[in-house]
Amino acid sequence: MEQKTGFNVAVVGATGAVGQQMIKTLESRDFPISKLTLLSSKRSAGTKVTYKDTEITVEEATPESFKGIDIALFSAGGGVSKELAPHAVSHGAIVVDNTSAFRMDENVPLVVPEVNEEDLHKHNGIIANPNCSTIQMVVALQPLREKYGLSKVLVSTYQAVSGSGAAAVEELHSQTKAIINEESFEPAILPVKSDKKHYQIAFNAIPQIDVFTENGFTYEEMKMINETKKIMHDENLKVAATCVRIPVATGHSESVYFEVDAADVTASDVQSLLKAAPGVILQDDIQNQVYPMPADCVGQNDVFVGRIRKDLDAENGFHMWVVSDNLLKGAAWNSVQIAESLVKLGLVK
Amino acid sequence: MEQKTGFNVAVVGATGAVGQQMIKTLESRDFPISKLTLLSSKRSAGTKVTYKDTEITVEEATPESFKGIDIALFSAGGGVSKELAPHAVSHGAIVVDNTSAFRMDENVPLVVPEVNEEDLHKHNGIIANPNCSTIQMVVALQPLREKYGLSKVLVSTYQAVSGSGAAAVEELHSQTKAIINEESFEPAILPVKSDKKHYQIAFNAIPQIDVFTENGFTYEEMKMINETKKIMHDENLKVAATCVRIPVATGHSESVYFEVDAADVTASDVQSLLKAAPGVILQDDIQNQVYPMPADCVGQNDVFVGRIRKDLDAENGFHMWVVSDNLLKGAAWNSVQIAESLVKLGLVK
Repeated sequence: MEQKTGFNVAVVGATGAVGQQMIKTLESRDFPISKLTLLSSKRSAGTKVTYKDTEITVEEATPESFKGIDIALFSAGGGVSKELAPHAVSHGAIVVDNTSAFRMDENVPLVVPEVNEEDLHKHNGIIANPNCSTIQMVVALQPLREKYGLSKVLVSTYQAVSGSGAAAVEELHSQTKAIINEESFEPAILPVKSDKKHYQIAFNAIPQIDVFTENGFTYEEMKMINETKKIMHDENLKVAATCVRIPVATGHSESVYFEVDAADVTASDVQSLLKAAPGVILQDDIQNQVYPMPADCVGQNDVFVGRIRKDLDAENGFHMWVVSDNLLKGAAWNSVQIAESLVKLGLVK
Repeated sequence: MEQKTGFNVAVVGATGAVGQQMIKTLESRDFPISKLTLLSSKRSAGTKVTYKDTEITVEEATPESFKGIDIALFSAGGGVSKELAPHAVSHGAIVVDNTSAFRMDENVPLVVPEVNEEDLHKHNGIIANPNCSTIQMVVALQPLREKYGLSKVLVSTYQAVSGSGAAAVEELHSQTKAIINEESFEPAILPVKSDKKHYQIAFNAIPQIDVFTENGFTYEEMKMINETKKIMHDENLKVAATCVRIPVATGHSESVYFEVDAADVTASDVQSLLKAAPGVILQDDIQNQVYPMPADCVGQNDVFVGRIRKDLDAENGFHMWVVSDNLLKGAAWNSVQIAESLVKLGLVK
C-alpha cells in the first residue's frame, strides 16, 4: 500500500498547554494534513480553535473518535492515553503519546528523532514521546555519545512550571502578583497537584517534581534516568538526576556533568561537535557572555547548549548547560517531529 | 594580657545588605560589645542605624577609624578591604573580612567555625569569611568528611540575587513588577554589575555569577572549588561547581553530589550524621514532602539539608539538597560566629 500525501490527524488534549502547542506546531511545520480532528475531555468539548484560518470545534474524545485517523497525538494525561490509545490503534491510527503511560513498555519505542529515529520501525501502533527534561538532555548528549562513547551523566535541573500545565503557570503568575502586592495566597497546584502538600513557587525553588519513589528519587528523576537508558539503548549508562522546579514559566535548564570513554577530548572538540549537531544550537561564547537562558529559548524548537568546559579533576569529565522550550522540543515539537519521521520513513499507511 | 569581656567592634559597610545583617546578628546574639562603630563610604556616612535602642550615626571609614577597635567586620567590597584592613590590623584590630580580597592568601585563615575553627589560632590579624555558596556546602559536607572521608564533590547552585547586593534585589523586584504589568524594563545589574552585558533575572535563570576565568569556569565557581579545598585542608579533594542565579531574593540552594571513601555507607547513615551535626538542620522526610526550600530558610542561621539519597550507580556516591540564608550563614552570621570563636578561644587581646 502506498503512503498517502495528506493525513487525518487527531490531537487529544487539544485545549491543554501542550495540545495548543501541538496545533501551532502542526501549522508552522505545514504538516501534510487532510483533516485535523481536535479532541478533549467532555468538559472542554465545544471550544473553538483556529487552525490555518479555519475554525475547528473541539469534540469529546471517545473510542469511536479515531475512526479514519492516521496519526493521533495524545497529550491529555496518562489515564486518557491508557484508556483511548488502544482504541485509536485498533482503528488503524498510529499513536504518538506524550504522557508517561507507555514510555517504559518494552513494546513501545521511546523516540527522540535526533537520537533513535530508527526505533520507529519497531512500533506496534504506539510511540512514546519522552519526558521533557529527558529529551533536551539526550539531544545534547547523543553526538558526544556517538563520537566519544558516554559512560556517566549527572544532571541537576532548573525546570519551568509549565511542565505542570497551564494551571501551574497561572499559580506562578498569581502568587508573584500577591507577593509583589503584599497580599496573602494559598499554594494549591505545585509541586504536584495530587500530592498532599503544596508550596510557594514564586521566588522559591522546590526540589520535588512528580511524587517520590521508594529509592528516594522522584518519578521525574527516575524518568530522566530510565528513559535516557532506553532511548540510548544502554542499560549500563550511569545516570543520576536531581529535578528542581524554579519560578520560570517556560524553558527548562539543566546543569549536566558527563564523562566520555575516549581520552584527550577537549572542550573545544565538544563545542565543534555540538555546533554541527542536529537540533542543537551552540550558544557558548563566554568572552561575550553568550550562554543559553530560558527566557531566550521560548517559542523555539531547538536545544541550546553553552558553558561547555572540561572538569578540572576527571580526565574525561565535562560540564555543560542545556536549555530548551519544554513545551516544544520537550513535548509538542518532539511529537510532531516523530509524526514527520513516520511520514518520511513511509510508516503511515 | 587577659581577654576583655566587652569589645570595641566596628562594622565596615554598615549600610549594605550584609552589613545590616551583621548589626542585627550582633544584636540578636548579644555579642559582648563595649562600643559599636559603624563605618561606610563617604556617600552613606551620616545614616542613622539603631542598635539595641541606641541610635548610631554611620561614619566614613578612614585609616584612622580603627584606633581602639578590637574586632572589625568588613563587608564593603574587596577594594575597601584591601585598602583599609591593613590599617585596622596596624591599629591592633582583628579583621574578619567578608570579601574575596584575602581568602586565598596563605597567611590568612579562611574559616567556617563548624569546619576549621582551629585555623583561627594561625591568624595574622586578618581572617577571611568564605564565599556564601561555599560556606553552606562545607557545613553539610564536613561531618561526612570527618566520619567517612570525602573524595569528590559536584555541585550545581540555585543562588539568590541578594548575593549581588541590595540593588540586585531591587532589580528582581522591579523587573518582576514590570513583567507582571507588561511594561518594558532594562536590565542593569545582573549577572555582574561590572561586566559588559546585563540580562533579565525575573522568570529566568542566568548561568553566570561573577566574571569568567580562563578555564571556562566563573570566579564564583572557582571560589567554591578553591575555598572548599582550603577550608578542608585537602588539595586533592575533587570539587567542581556550576553556579546559577535564579529569581529568588534570599536563600541559596545547592544540588550536591558527593563520594565518600568508606564502603557500605547508607543514606540513613548520612541522615543520622547530619541530624546531629553542628549548624545543620535535617529536613528530610519525603513521605511528608519535607525538604529545604529557600523561602523557608530566610532569617535563620542554620544550614538545611534534605533529599539525601544514595546514587544508583556509584557505590560511594550520594545526592543531597542544601539550603541556607546567604546573607546569614553565608555572610553576616558566619562573620559574627568567627568573632564569637575568637572570643571563646581567647584570641582577642
